[in-house]
Amino acid sequence: MENESLFRNRRTVRLYEQRLVADELLEKVLDAARLAPCAANRQRLRYVVARTPEIVSKLLPLTKWAMHVSPHRTPVQGESGPAAFIAVIGPREGNAYIHADAGAAIGYIQLAASCLGLGSCWLASVEREEASAVLGLSVDVELLYLVSVGYPAEKPVLDDNASETAYYLDDAGVLHVRKLPLDVIARWM
Amino acid sequence: MENESLFRNRRTVRLYEQRLVADELLEKVLDAARLAPCAANRQRLRYVVARTPEIVSKLLPLTKWAMHVSPHRTPVQGESGPAAFIAVIGPREGNAYIHADAGAAIGYIQLAASCLGLGSCWLASVEREEASAVLGLSVDVELLYLVSVGYPAEKPVLDDNASETAYYLDDAGVLHVRKLPLDVIARWM
Repeated sequence: MENESLFRNRRTVRLYEQRLVADELLEKVLDAARLAPCAANRQRLRYVVARTPEIVSKLLPLTKWAMHVSPHRTPVQGESGPAAFIAVIGPREGNAYIHADAGAAIGYIQLAASCLGLGSCWLASVEREEASAVLGLSVDVELLYLVSVGYPAEKPVLDDNASETAYYLDDAGVLHVRKLPLDVIARWM
Repeated sequence: MENESLFRNRRTVRLYEQRLVADELLEKVLDAARLAPCAANRQRLRYVVARTPEIVSKLLPLTKWAMHVSPHRTPVQGESGPAAFIAVIGPREGNAYIHADAGAAIGYIQLAASCLGLGSCWLASVEREEASAVLGLSVDVELLYLVSVGYPAEKPVLDDNASETAYYLDDAGVLHVRKLPLDVIARWM
């Protein structure tokens, strides 16, 4: 598979260069999400792209990053913060399937960002009430997740076929992400 | 983005050629899932690959396909059935996040399958109790979703920038999948 490296090279990035990301690139990232599979093709997810420094600086303090290595991978506004957040939004009455839809869309977002030389991080630990106010969301929708996007200022490495899952920083400050081997997670019949 | 066609070409496939899929290819598909992003990198998903004709024939009657065009995209065992099912399994106490993890992993599975010339369908409408028995699942895990995999015997087309979402069959029996335009699903700030 010529695209095998695509999946292998996509790593979550939490520290960013202080450069804006062109709207054209963010549009390509969102377009991948738009084409992701979803339950019954209903396309119930909506997105807000927050990419002005003012809005990004309001959202950043409402997020928590990388609990296993906190605070070393908490980006600092103006030093290592992301250029943009993509807010992934669903109907308030959404059941578990809306989270599955969001997962597929965010998987696509992170792959597309990686293809474009961008880094991203999927954030589930968000002060949702305050972030929803910053984003101007109506009461009938729910902020499911945020995804940060920017040019990478770190290069996490994959520790493959590991026996545990906690990620860690090495002495050089590089983040190592452990992945379990295939024979541990899959059974054949 | 050179991989743009990757996202655009991945379509759900529900009718399959009657050919087996080599284990080596199924391993590549699973390896993509293994590398997908997941909450706190905990890697709580597990997989069962059901690829013997005997097991596949037991699972197929426990699934429902494409409600909008039923029964025209319900594969028939021995005529248009898939070569394999990948069962995506989570801990029984899993909250909504496990569905988000599953969505990301299945998004990767479907892209990897597409890269390899395979078609796939993400199935949420499954008789879970019976399918869990066929798969020999223990009581502490939950069957979240099935993904069918096989060589495509249909070529669904993308109707882009559509104003509604229901997919449909045209007079030639081709499945059309409508996708909403970006400016309907995304807002910028």
